[in-house]
Amino acid sequence: MAEPFVYRVRVRYSECDLQGVLFNANYLAYIDHAITELWRAAYGGYTVMLDRGADIVVAEVNMRFLGSARFDEEVVIEATVTNLGTTSVTTGFRFHRAGNGDPLLEAQIRHVFIDPGTSAKTPMPDWAREGLAPWHLPIASAEP
Amino acid sequence: MAEPFVYRVRVRYSECDLQGVLFNANYLAYIDHAITELWRAAYGGYTVMLDRGADIVVAEVNMRFLGSARFDEEVVIEATVTNLGTTSVTTGFRFHRAGNGDPLLEAQIRHVFIDPGTSAKTPMPDWAREGLAPWHLPIASAEP
Amino acid sequence: MAEPFVYRVRVRYSECDLQGVLFNANYLAYIDHAITELWRAAYGGYTVMLDRGADIVVAEVNMRFLGSARFDEEVVIEATVTNLGTTSVTTGFRFHRAGNGDPLLEAQIRHVFIDPGTSAKTPMPDWAREGLAPWHLPIASAEP
Amino acid sequence: MAEPFVYRVRVRYSECDLQGVLFNANYLAYIDHAITELWRAAYGGYTVMLDRGADIVVAEVNMRFLGSARFDEEVVIEATVTNLGTTSVTTGFRFHRAGNGDPLLEAQIRHVFIDPGTSAKTPMPDWAREGLAPWHLPIASAEP
Repeated sequence: MAEPFVYRVRVRYSECDLQGVLFNANYLAYIDHAITELWRAAYGGYTVMLDRGADIVVAEVNMRFLGSARFDEEVVIEATVTNLGTTSVTTGFRFHRAGNGDPLLEAQIRHVFIDPGTSAKTPMPDWAREGLAPWHLPIASAEP
Repeated sequence: MAEPFVYRVRVRYSECDLQGVLFNANYLAYIDHAITELWRAAYGGYTVMLDRGADIVVAEVNMRFLGSARFDEEVVIEATVTNLGTTSVTTGFRFHRAGNGDPLLEAQIRHVFIDPGTSAKTPMPDWAREGLAPWHLPIASAEP
Repeated sequence: MAEPFVYRVRVRYSECDLQGVLFNANYLAYIDHAITELWRAAYGGYTVMLDRGADIVVAEVNMRFLGSARFDEEVVIEATVTNLGTTSVTTGFRFHRAGNGDPLLEAQIRHVFIDPGTSAKTPMPDWAREGLAPWHLPIASAEP
Repeated sequence: MAEPFVYRVRVRYSECDLQGVLFNANYLAYIDHAITELWRAAYGGYTVMLDRGADIVVAEVNMRFLGSARFDEEVVIEATVTNLGTTSVTTGFRFHRAGNGDPLLEAQIRHVFIDPGTSAKTPMPDWAREGLAPWHLPIASAEP
């Protein structure tokens, strides 16, 4: 049974806004930081991906804000691969506050594999599919 | 007939990433910059909103990436108010490249009005509803 | 007699911090935005510089903070080229608040021309020296 | 004998620019992140400082760039308190690349204690002076 990939990050002063909380666009940046670490675990990281001739772009993002992370709080980010398509991979995220577990965000991001030369969609390489498999938890089975 | 609110912005060097394009989280920051200007036009701006005892938080974001803005390109952002609910307002966005009109992003963001003291949801004030009305273009009529 | 190059910018919500003012590192980002526009005026911009086979890196920064810019305020940035060396160019900056003219920052930044291939220092190209000349105001004559 | 305070940070994708390296203003942001951790070790952190009725602003920054940190590299930041004045504290920084030790940056930042109500300079509180003492390494003795 797949387990979520877990990434922990402390909210930086520069990432907060006048409301005293993490600025909304920085939740999307946090998703990027978390996925960098997921890809490192899956197949050595984004640079390795480029070295193997594959690149990836964001196609779609959906975010639901459930709470606010404050300066200096630690945020726990759980990521699971919810769909491995022909050319795209969808990753789901749950953010919660360390300590009390308050939910902060639920999000999905869909990436598409592209040819670095032409920017055209390309099939997901086998090494990527295999590398991501340990965190593949299709939505259906995740919600019994 | 309502017209979209238009905001233009030039892509800064610091906003681009290694792929040479606007970093994905910065599209969400651009939505925030555009909505700051929309709210200025609608009722004097975010600071005026706070002075009148209302605050607002992001509840939901959906983004579909259609292209990539590059360093130094100008991006044209069209915003329309797609829903004026009891406590929330949804704003729709279309980004395209100045000059050739290439589509870059379609997005919706839903904000909720809150009481600055308690952070509880509160009804949208009349002055906000009236101020936003000129850009209110319900989805149904937008897609004939 | 040389005049400073002037760039105006409005402080974005996302650029402010918990103290309600422009975050300190963003003053350095503003210097970068201003110099992008100075270089556009001088010789067509950074991309043109790269196309002509020159690149540039930051070697040194000195900043003195004199005040704080707040959300939504407009900042007026004056830039002058204070030194045109063999391989480096130093640009001086004065930031003040639009309207009341409150001083906000004084800064100098020194850039060095490099060969994009080897990253070694190279002499400033003539087209760069000539392009920057209209804003060249050596420190000595600037302080009579 | 005082030892530098050490903070390690991995360069994020979103922090790099088109040249493939950490964007110059982000070195200043890194200084802020490092000093957040130094202040946590010294007296419980910035929030504790505010709770005790003290606030602090940046007065001066000097940075000398010696190399470039790239995406995904780990940067080691050493900080020492180089001056404890009446109302101000100066902190010196050396950044180097983890692994090979390549020098990346030398910098000093001077902060001034202020009254949160009036923003006027105030003497450094004793608890701050005592808390910072373990990392106080005056410049003279640091360069024998």
